[in-house]
Amino acid sequence: MDQKKKTIAIDMDGVIADTVAHFVEWYARDSGVRLSRKVFERKAEKDALPGNAVRKYVVSPGFFRTAPVMPGAREALLELSKDFEIYIVSAAMEFPQSLSEKYDWLAEHFEFISWRNIVFCGDKSVIGTDYMIDDHVKNLDFFRGVPILYTSEHNLDIVRHTRVNNWAEAISFLKKKPADPII
Amino acid sequence: MDQKKKTIAIDMDGVIADTVAHFVEWYARDSGVRLSRKVFERKAEKDALPGNAVRKYVVSPGFFRTAPVMPGAREALLELSKDFEIYIVSAAMEFPQSLSEKYDWLAEHFEFISWRNIVFCGDKSVIGTDYMIDDHVKNLDFFRGVPILYTSEHNLDIVRHTRVNNWAEAISFLKKKPADPII
Repeated sequence: MDQKKKTIAIDMDGVIADTVAHFVEWYARDSGVRLSRKVFERKAEKDALPGNAVRKYVVSPGFFRTAPVMPGAREALLELSKDFEIYIVSAAMEFPQSLSEKYDWLAEHFEFISWRNIVFCGDKSVIGTDYMIDDHVKNLDFFRGVPILYTSEHNLDIVRHTRVNNWAEAISFLKKKPADPII
Repeated sequence: MDQKKKTIAIDMDGVIADTVAHFVEWYARDSGVRLSRKVFERKAEKDALPGNAVRKYVVSPGFFRTAPVMPGAREALLELSKDFEIYIVSAAMEFPQSLSEKYDWLAEHFEFISWRNIVFCGDKSVIGTDYMIDDHVKNLDFFRGVPILYTSEHNLDIVRHTRVNNWAEAISFLKKKPADPII
């Protein structure tokens, strides 16, 4: 890695992969009912769909492999790669069938990310990057660098971390120079 | 994780998996010639066997899944788990077919290690544990915690890190209290 660049750990699900859209899509396919993604607001993801569907989908072969890319994520990571060393850090270990699917998904949609910069883990507390962009506070709360909360339906009420609502805001935050005025 | 415990990142190949023994075994099976593991001494592992066999084996399905456990490793990790939070950290991303094999290997031989404590990565420079036990200096040289070099045939000439020759020595080093006399 280039030692001069600051490092960013970037989460996959809910950050560069639009898993909520994918849950809604699979549920519509299976039930014939197209729900709004608002059903995911302010609750644990696993409880958002009827019939334990979320838990069923995350262990289903193909779910992670076919998730849509989060709007703007590819362009944002290409842009950030110029100034930062980017690591994709996914808590994939809970769903071991997802390991190869997530590897292949990254190779398809983010082919400019080297295998050297991919981390699949369980607990993210071992990650020692300068920044972390994640939608789950459990990953950000004990992070020793600068935590950045990426907005997802389930985290709308969280106020204890810097929040970015989309990739344009993430770039704006990360590319702000320390000497820039705050207001 | 238990925040009171110090954390250790422990490598797989050459540290808890005896990959050199496994290379020798597969080469004997394929060639009929049983080489001494001394052929791995003081050279890059990939150059140790004739006919590029090492490179062939590391991309062969089943190689990592069937590697023997390093003598004493299971007992040592059980012992160390009492006082440390142990993370298995393997640079598995270079060989994506190894991801599920390494997961299954750990589940078989180190069933007491939770999925929360497994990390598969490329570049280990993002790992922020207190200790790291590894046989490759490329992983230890830029580590910000305490690096510990686990002896392997390829690293016999390295003198710039604390060396342990086997798991008994690793336990002895790690369980030495800071207040213990050095000599």
